[in-house]
Amino acid sequence: MKCGVDIGGQSAKIGFVENNKLVDSFRIKTNKDTLFCDIFNSINEYINKNNIKLESIGFGIPGNVNNNYIYNMPNIGLKNIDLNKEALKYTNIKINSTNDANCAALGEALYSEYSSIYFITLGTGCGGGYVYNKELVIGKTHSAAEIGHMFIDYKHNYKCTCGLTGCLETIASSVGIVRLAKEYKDKYKTNIDFNNLSSKEVFDKAKLNDELGLFVLNYVSKTLALAIRNICVTLDPECIIIGGGVAECGDILINKIKEYMNEVGFYASKNIDIKPAKLGNDSGMIGASLL
Amino acid sequence: MKCGVDIGGQSAKIGFVENNKLVDSFRIKTNKDTLFCDIFNSINEYINKNNIKLESIGFGIPGNVNNNYIYNMPNIGLKNIDLNKEALKYTNIKINSTNDANCAALGEALYSEYSSIYFITLGTGCGGGYVYNKELVIGKTHSAAEIGHMFIDYKHNYKCTCGLTGCLETIASSVGIVRLAKEYKDKYKTNIDFNNLSSKEVFDKAKLNDELGLFVLNYVSKTLALAIRNICVTLDPECIIIGGGVAECGDILINKIKEYMNEVGFYASKNIDIKPAKLGNDSGMIGASLL
Repeated sequence: MKCGVDIGGQSAKIGFVENNKLVDSFRIKTNKDTLFCDIFNSINEYINKNNIKLESIGFGIPGNVNNNYIYNMPNIGLKNIDLNKEALKYTNIKINSTNDANCAALGEALYSEYSSIYFITLGTGCGGGYVYNKELVIGKTHSAAEIGHMFIDYKHNYKCTCGLTGCLETIASSVGIVRLAKEYKDKYKTNIDFNNLSSKEVFDKAKLNDELGLFVLNYVSKTLALAIRNICVTLDPECIIIGGGVAECGDILINKIKEYMNEVGFYASKNIDIKPAKLGNDSGMIGASLL
Repeated sequence: MKCGVDIGGQSAKIGFVENNKLVDSFRIKTNKDTLFCDIFNSINEYINKNNIKLESIGFGIPGNVNNNYIYNMPNIGLKNIDLNKEALKYTNIKINSTNDANCAALGEALYSEYSSIYFITLGTGCGGGYVYNKELVIGKTHSAAEIGHMFIDYKHNYKCTCGLTGCLETIASSVGIVRLAKEYKDKYKTNIDFNNLSSKEVFDKAKLNDELGLFVLNYVSKTLALAIRNICVTLDPECIIIGGGVAECGDILINKIKEYMNEVGFYASKNIDIKPAKLGNDSGMIGASLL
């Protein structure tokens, strides 16, 4: 049995995986001051109660991590944590870690028919993971698949959280979608409810042919198609998998991206398979357990 | 002993490689009508004369090739060649092939201290090769590292040979450099000799602080820096290696790219090693022999 932990801003999901299948899982609240104490105690309690021998514990970290050293988890407000040291206080089980999007990519790849996939996750921000021949590509600086920071948007000068402009994340994320809707709200007719503005509200209205909603959907989809062209000409994966909260709008986004791929894709890869993520919220735990 | 053949528009370079070292090589003229007959006959003659037992023959193809089937070699004017069938007319030695930029990447990777490199070649066009853990990444459609077709230039509407616009190749290639110099010649003071216009002429004048030359050098370097940012956030290689005729201008281009990486690069990879190719014209033969 292996354990995979997917740490999020609100809760940490703790899953137990056997033969690549999630057999049990639970959540605990994310408490900044006692985060890893809470996680390891919960795991110890669970394995003692169920008389389980764990092979390993993998962590999906919402932030920068390299060799089990966490530089930063901005949404939780924690910095500079030596995860090896932390773990040794509670367990002798071997641990491993990478960022949460990499974990989700590994999980999705496991349940995919392909051996080389590029995963893009569209949430508050935009991240990704590259799995080549069933193995995660981490990269020299542990920043492979920081795809949200691809230079791709040439029309706006939105400043990204990373300090640069032109980043995919400034468009293809819930923050980007909301911003686009606000910026163009006087240029297109709309019934979007700006009091309850979210990427879901924008895409829900696009499904009803709302002009502003359609403009934003088209803009986001074309930007993603250009980004996918660039991913394909850079490494030519077998499949692009798109997940994250924004992608939960149904087929409308992926269908639009495919339409634009036909227009802006490189001939060899314009028919690349683009598929929705299958595992939803479980991908992070499953992927983390595989580390 | 292994043989590597690097086919070019003017000549085919045939090299003999032992323990990863080029021990002998010669060129034959590229004759469209008798290309593979000439190549195999030359190889047979050489190995008979020198009493050599060859393990394999690898081909670097200037065009689209997949599983030893050549779809197109536009600069030579040949299409739809079954290289396996062709080879069997002359030899029983096993053959393999990929495109010429991939071969050059393999050769450069072999002589590099890194195990994962991204190679960019700047010639008439712009191509590349991605070597991950010392192995070539070919990609699903055999178009990994068709990096010349990355969407990156947002200011011009130059149409690329592939039919798209915005391609890196429309800027970062000898064709692109010459075109930029012509387009901006009335906007900047210049001593560039337009009767002998080439990328070398433009960069040679840039070295003398020619205003137009510097404008083009800066524009090409910044575009390459943006492309390298995108390569790094996509797969985070250990090193970028830049080769090809355009890069033979000396340090001026790579130094400028590094300057711009500091401005437009993602923080994790803005200090990525960017190095000039080491093997010059031999990289294709050496890489082909490794296939």
